[in-house]
Amino acid sequence: MKEEKGFVKEITPQSEDFSRWYIDVIRKADLMDYTPVRGCIVFKPDGYELWERIQAGLDRRFKETGHRNAYFPMLIPESFFQKEKEHVEGFNPELPWVTEAGGEKLEEKLALRPTSETIIGHMYAQWIQSYRDLPVLINQWANVFRWEKRTLPFLRTSEFLWQEGHTAHATEEEAREETMRMLEVYREFVETEMAIPLYVGQKTPSEKFAGAVETYSIEAMMKDGKALQAGTSHYLGQNFAKGFEIKFLDRDNQLKYVHTTSWGVSTRLIGALIMVHGDDRGLALPPRLAPVQVIMIPVGPPKFRDKVMARFDPLFDGLKAAGVRVKSDLREETPGWKFNEWEMRGVPIRVEIGPRDVDNNQCILVRRDTGEKIPVPLDEAVQRIRALLEEIQRNMFEKAKAFRDAHSHLHINTLEELKGHIVRCEESGELAGFVLAGWCGSDECEAKVKEETKFTSRVIPFDPPQQKQTCIHCGGEAKHTLWFARAY
Amino acid sequence: MKEEKGFVKEITPQSEDFSRWYIDVIRKADLMDYTPVRGCIVFKPDGYELWERIQAGLDRRFKETGHRNAYFPMLIPESFFQKEKEHVEGFNPELPWVTEAGGEKLEEKLALRPTSETIIGHMYAQWIQSYRDLPVLINQWANVFRWEKRTLPFLRTSEFLWQEGHTAHATEEEAREETMRMLEVYREFVETEMAIPLYVGQKTPSEKFAGAVETYSIEAMMKDGKALQAGTSHYLGQNFAKGFEIKFLDRDNQLKYVHTTSWGVSTRLIGALIMVHGDDRGLALPPRLAPVQVIMIPVGPPKFRDKVMARFDPLFDGLKAAGVRVKSDLREETPGWKFNEWEMRGVPIRVEIGPRDVDNNQCILVRRDTGEKIPVPLDEAVQRIRALLEEIQRNMFEKAKAFRDAHSHLHINTLEELKGHIVRCEESGELAGFVLAGWCGSDECEAKVKEETKFTSRVIPFDPPQQKQTCIHCGGEAKHTLWFARAY
Repeated sequence: MKEEKGFVKEITPQSEDFSRWYIDVIRKADLMDYTPVRGCIVFKPDGYELWERIQAGLDRRFKETGHRNAYFPMLIPESFFQKEKEHVEGFNPELPWVTEAGGEKLEEKLALRPTSETIIGHMYAQWIQSYRDLPVLINQWANVFRWEKRTLPFLRTSEFLWQEGHTAHATEEEAREETMRMLEVYREFVETEMAIPLYVGQKTPSEKFAGAVETYSIEAMMKDGKALQAGTSHYLGQNFAKGFEIKFLDRDNQLKYVHTTSWGVSTRLIGALIMVHGDDRGLALPPRLAPVQVIMIPVGPPKFRDKVMARFDPLFDGLKAAGVRVKSDLREETPGWKFNEWEMRGVPIRVEIGPRDVDNNQCILVRRDTGEKIPVPLDEAVQRIRALLEEIQRNMFEKAKAFRDAHSHLHINTLEELKGHIVRCEESGELAGFVLAGWCGSDECEAKVKEETKFTSRVIPFDPPQQKQTCIHCGGEAKHTLWFARAY
Repeated sequence: MKEEKGFVKEITPQSEDFSRWYIDVIRKADLMDYTPVRGCIVFKPDGYELWERIQAGLDRRFKETGHRNAYFPMLIPESFFQKEKEHVEGFNPELPWVTEAGGEKLEEKLALRPTSETIIGHMYAQWIQSYRDLPVLINQWANVFRWEKRTLPFLRTSEFLWQEGHTAHATEEEAREETMRMLEVYREFVETEMAIPLYVGQKTPSEKFAGAVETYSIEAMMKDGKALQAGTSHYLGQNFAKGFEIKFLDRDNQLKYVHTTSWGVSTRLIGALIMVHGDDRGLALPPRLAPVQVIMIPVGPPKFRDKVMARFDPLFDGLKAAGVRVKSDLREETPGWKFNEWEMRGVPIRVEIGPRDVDNNQCILVRRDTGEKIPVPLDEAVQRIRALLEEIQRNMFEKAKAFRDAHSHLHINTLEELKGHIVRCEESGELAGFVLAGWCGSDECEAKVKEETKFTSRVIPFDPPQQKQTCIHCGGEAKHTLWFARAY
């Protein structure tokens, strides 16, 4: 083991200091490291492998829905940002700029992409001439840059990794369908593979993407009750089409602007995974995403090692053959030390075999999600383990959903009630969580809630648990019912 | 079809102008596009898919040899480049610099990585303390930047995509083994999957990587007889370990510097693929790498379409079920137009079925590599196609190897002979190709050859077809036998 991991002797309990807990866990589990480059981290192999698994799951889904990958230049000329007014206002303050290259000062400075609507819009204008060229369905896996003031590993860093889909369509209807299709791809992937329950819906105008007509998002609740926006899908209307002159000759022989969409998720999903499932013992990874699903550890005195290994090895081989991602830990450490180590790393199932287990023709399965110990006959072990992985996946989702629902508050109707709720939570140590509230639709009312409570509007859910009648701030008629929460 | 492809009406023949042929092919096959960002291209879906297949093949091999992926910051502080003298001299002239970010001028400017030895060296110094931490075997897939004066799509662009392996070892021996292991991984992949025959060996000191002790490379011959360096593996000795203080406490309780390696291939492999196999009809892709291995096209008058499709569809399904990457082209274009189109795109096998084929219970296979037409019984078609894909893969390699060998010249021993060879080739239109020559080992002699002939030293092959006795320039005793060629 590496010395530097020793710096995290014990993981701070979540209840004591959730932020400290988070940093302790990602450091101790060796997922990342800080670097001398402001706000940039290293994604270490154990952290990057989570991203590789997220990439594989999403990439397959993108291709199944007809998208293809491409790669566009990272450097974007300054003038490109001027072509969509909201876009430049939204991103300008966060851009790093290349001003010199090859020993010379550049005539026009180049931004490191914060997102690629502009350069892609420019290229689409060359590629799209006729209705026969549509739709264009392209995705890009790339690094992006946003020079943030406050940074937090995986959640907000100066450089991060993401995918960005960019599509162009002949009609508004098709573009809106695409926006919803990809939102649903995200929901299905994050709920099914990452076992993270989501609130899904539309962003308010003040929270939408700079340049979008409408932004939709998936929002998850972390174990400190705060919200994390885990993915967004934007209907961009003709904003970028007009900025970049993306026009096509339609069937009716009319020259028209296309309708575009964009959608993205990033390495912040790694942060969501940790903060939704982790506990005081460390990471807890859902089986479908876990790089290691089963850790096998022999136990008992060394003199029985041969006897144990005679049953241990065939089970290991059997699991491998069954496609289970299994690893064995045969290092010269105590079993107790190894148990802690692999619990901390979040492996869903631990398998123990000792001499007495061999006598009883069994092994012991230990669930990371519940701690339960389950003796199973050796000749049923492969099949029981496979079933248990499914069960743990389901249980982790249900557990996270129960947690979220328990901290989703439906009975708050006024700003005073929200303030009272927050004060009560602070006093009792409860989590303030998500609050469902009515909203009249005015930016001012939304801003006031934020100003006075730090609760921001998260999403207008498609399927709210109830419809609110009055605005939480002004008391006027509610046009929308939405989730408010403190957010990352 | 998109209008802009129409710009390339016909592909310039290779014999007329190879450079023009190359640009025509990559444009017509829709692999890339130019951008307004100096020296940067778009990797369009058909081009990027070739990279995805290269990535998949290599990534699997890297993991099988014990490597794991990680991601390091793209921005590298200026001071990092100063820590290895040769490195800074080698890369400084090509760097783009970020000097402003988040609305402020940076105190220290940041380079866009041209390669990551420095930032990774800095991190390894934190991570490596003891012999127990070694070896560190990490790979990174990333974008990199080199502000080149002359650019050529896929071969030399300001931004390109690559992988860079970076490993650290306790001993020189282990590091040297790693250097050779990864060179062999490259050779095996490029020869086996890409069907590109290689000369493999060591670079001369003047051609080695800036900061390496020794550089090894794989070199391929393009169809214009020029060389392309297709991948490199570097033994870095303790150069970066000393620059970045990467030290470990060894078993003998001594504090020692590690020995490091690095190795990389890039999107220029796409260029190699095109220029080794392509011909006047367009791309020709080896079956193992081809995104589409088989294109199925129905032929004959429309009135027989139902009759044809009754046999066409089951064959399509059968190929899919057999794991063949098959596509059908049912567009309303003439068969002739489609034949040209898919030949141009390099698909290894075309399958035609018309009404008379149905009567004869057969289909026609057409090989992209030879043009041969092979009637096969429908009930044997799947198995015959699978076998033919293997055969085409082998034949493409053998054909490329025969071409390379025919243009590898062994009988030139003096600079005068080389000059004569070049003049003769220019006059006759023959390709000058690769020339095997002796070399005394002096930088001066090597430089003179380059100066007077534009032939550069490519590689000192491990296994030269003959050993040369005298230096091509000074006539003194040859220490090495090496391949010279004009190079991309």
